[in-house]
Amino acid sequence: MRLYVTPASPWVRRVRVTILELGIEDRFEFVQTKWSHKWATRAVEHRPDFLEATPVVRIPALVTAAFTLTDSHSICDYINGELGGFRLLAQEGAPRWRVLADMSVACAIIEAHISRRAELLRSEHERSNDFIGKMRDRELRCFATLEKRVPQFGATFDLAQITIAVACGYESWRYGNEWRGVAPKLAAWYDVVAQRPSMGATEPAETPQA
Amino acid sequence: MRLYVTPASPWVRRVRVTILELGIEDRFEFVQTKWSHKWATRAVEHRPDFLEATPVVRIPALVTAAFTLTDSHSICDYINGELGGFRLLAQEGAPRWRVLADMSVACAIIEAHISRRAELLRSEHERSNDFIGKMRDRELRCFATLEKRVPQFGATFDLAQITIAVACGYESWRYGNEWRGVAPKLAAWYDVVAQRPSMGATEPAETPQA
Repeated sequence: MRLYVTPASPWVRRVRVTILELGIEDRFEFVQTKWSHKWATRAVEHRPDFLEATPVVRIPALVTAAFTLTDSHSICDYINGELGGFRLLAQEGAPRWRVLADMSVACAIIEAHISRRAELLRSEHERSNDFIGKMRDRELRCFATLEKRVPQFGATFDLAQITIAVACGYESWRYGNEWRGVAPKLAAWYDVVAQRPSMGATEPAETPQA
Repeated sequence: MRLYVTPASPWVRRVRVTILELGIEDRFEFVQTKWSHKWATRAVEHRPDFLEATPVVRIPALVTAAFTLTDSHSICDYINGELGGFRLLAQEGAPRWRVLADMSVACAIIEAHISRRAELLRSEHERSNDFIGKMRDRELRCFATLEKRVPQFGATFDLAQITIAVACGYESWRYGNEWRGVAPKLAAWYDVVAQRPSMGATEPAETPQA
């Protein structure tokens, strides 16, 4: 199956780390995409196979023989369930819902990351500094919530922990380390998990320009 | 458990329809929230219990005794699995992934809906007409993709169909009926499912202003 990726996207990184943690990278063909910085407000040029694969025209997109999944939520659910024996997220019951709860906060951070990035890429006269501040504040509130959850983190680097680690990594990469002051225990946890081979192999880098 | 809602949000409607289809509305306390139109770019005033419930400060948010879920993806997954016996989305296997694939396209439409709405609520000098056009085009591409899927829709009004129906309803309500020309079979399907009590009881209305 084909997975459309970029090296900058935290949504892509979440999927790639999941694949590496499960040791199933040989099941995938990774297809790089390029993005002009105009993506924040305009449709940009893409390879025809990518446009054909997903009407959303976003990464990650996973194309199997039977269907296409066009967001990291469904892709991670599929990889964990069908290819991973539910090792990174329980199939049902309290262990699943508890992990979903932490994961939903981490996903909110990543959504804010992308929205803030898109805002920064807008032309100056269309940019809202209020919006940038709103996203920053949301990120820091979410980090503060996750800080309280650290003592309950389980032994498995599961889908929630993967998503949280990716959120921490992207925040530091694009926006600096203010979050570490808000969430010192989380930062200490992150410094350990960032050493995992799956995280090291997926460190963010700028998206190739179209 | 408490579910924070508004009458306008398609993400909330998706959760409410899911609850009504499962006939479990007596399990929830529905808490209305109010939103100044400034929400598009700024943090707005909220009740302290809502701010305490979710660091994301978005609806829907589901607060149980054990945890809080702060997006409709995790809320629907929980409701379907824990309270609905997986009746609206299979627990695993091809039936789950196929439904996730359609659902991910419908979710992309709803994301575009919210982004387009937020853009329209920005002050004129910070508004990007390019971005509005990009979201409109994405919506119509996704409707065209779903149009091809209609013959494969199953007999159950499942989580994908619920999400698709909500996407159709919101599109018509906010942005008109251009999509019907792009997806006539889907529109005919929608006109039938829109008659379901769960859809009738959740027709969108303007969000109360703070």
